[in-house]
Amino acid sequence: MSQRPLILVTNDDGITAPGIRALIQVMNLIGDVVVVAPDSPQSAMGHAITINSTLHCNQMKNVVGPQKEYQCSGTPADCVKLAINELMDRKPDICVSGVNHGSNSSINVVYSGTMSAAIEAGIQGIPAIGFSLLDYRWDADFEPIKPFIEKITRAAIKNEQRADVVLNVNFPALEEGEIKGIRICRQAKANWVEKFDKRQSPLGRDYYWLTGEFINEDKCQDTDEWALKEGYISLVPTQFDLTAHHAIQELNNWGFEK
Amino acid sequence: MSQRPLILVTNDDGITAPGIRALIQVMNLIGDVVVVAPDSPQSAMGHAITINSTLHCNQMKNVVGPQKEYQCSGTPADCVKLAINELMDRKPDICVSGVNHGSNSSINVVYSGTMSAAIEAGIQGIPAIGFSLLDYRWDADFEPIKPFIEKITRAAIKNEQRADVVLNVNFPALEEGEIKGIRICRQAKANWVEKFDKRQSPLGRDYYWLTGEFINEDKCQDTDEWALKEGYISLVPTQFDLTAHHAIQELNNWGFEK
Repeated sequence: MSQRPLILVTNDDGITAPGIRALIQVMNLIGDVVVVAPDSPQSAMGHAITINSTLHCNQMKNVVGPQKEYQCSGTPADCVKLAINELMDRKPDICVSGVNHGSNSSINVVYSGTMSAAIEAGIQGIPAIGFSLLDYRWDADFEPIKPFIEKITRAAIKNEQRADVVLNVNFPALEEGEIKGIRICRQAKANWVEKFDKRQSPLGRDYYWLTGEFINEDKCQDTDEWALKEGYISLVPTQFDLTAHHAIQELNNWGFEK
Repeated sequence: MSQRPLILVTNDDGITAPGIRALIQVMNLIGDVVVVAPDSPQSAMGHAITINSTLHCNQMKNVVGPQKEYQCSGTPADCVKLAINELMDRKPDICVSGVNHGSNSSINVVYSGTMSAAIEAGIQGIPAIGFSLLDYRWDADFEPIKPFIEKITRAAIKNEQRADVVLNVNFPALEEGEIKGIRICRQAKANWVEKFDKRQSPLGRDYYWLTGEFINEDKCQDTDEWALKEGYISLVPTQFDLTAHHAIQELNNWGFEK
């Protein structure tokens, strides 16, 4: 790549989130940056897209930095579709999503708007990385992870990352010197055990808040959960071919053929 | 299984959709049915869940049939979580989702609320099947596919389907006699090429409608797209471990280790 790479930046916490500001700062070191992000928080939106409603999009004024910025009324996946097919002059060389305020490791990848934006870019043929920090707070400290974000993004460009393998990167909430390095991992077989907090509105109507406990019974040392617990950055190659190829033979034995 | 199976029925088109009515009718032949479905259409919601807002849920009155029915304000995945963790007396033996008005074959599985509900059940340890008919119309004819829905569901129960392999079943829009049979397939490598239809509101504000064209360049005969085009029902085993295991070795060569 002779010219500076064209980088699409998006997220799911919304365009005003500190996490995307940190990501933009790093990407300005690497290439020409276009930001297309939701105009409001879209956490846990999974791979939702807007097909039964309209989308609004506005270019931001008074941006601090050289990047172009657009805010969009849709979901993270909508933002990526709109960026690539309508807003950008040419296809971006890479798409980065985040930095998410909170973990997208293990089964959380399924619910994650951050990762769905990255996966949408992959579906569109663009190499993509989702970045998440294990700190849910709005004022989480993104400084310690900036050098690693730069390193991983430059490596993805240099190694000509495949579009059909999207990188899911999670950072432990540690100081830069405490982070032990980067581990290539698989998604841990963990899940949430939900509880619903049942309450009553002032008018006496029942409603629920979803809460839950994250349970990881996958104790192997090749998982993202293990790496993060040990102080490593986890990097899980993630795909959007959901076929359970190993199950095809078994299903052929169910006797459906005429 | 000595007693009648307990069956959770859900969908993404909403509790009033003809597709879920057809599914309920078939499931009443097989077991004891509890319906927990969205109170409004939730197409293309992907695996969205509601974490920043509350959920409402009401049991339906004047139900036609022996099943219990609940409508819920959340997404398809919310409905499954609420059903399993709050509304049902015991874990269901199987969860069926649909019948969706429209295809969820190939890459559509990623955007599908129907399949995200089934996948959520799988994550919760419950065998699950998503059913979709390749006819988007509200008055689509579900009669021809009812015998096949019954056959596939009974086979899943008899063969003790694994919870970590969710079945994605799509039906061609054909008469019963024209359907050639059931094929076990992989997800075709196809995608949408989006176009945004840009319009102006009466007040002069720009907005967009997402449209697109489905492009399938995967011509192999083991895909869901091929099966459907040839008049077969496609059945794709689907997983929620998104790890691209084949890419781990390649990424280890990027030289991240300290």
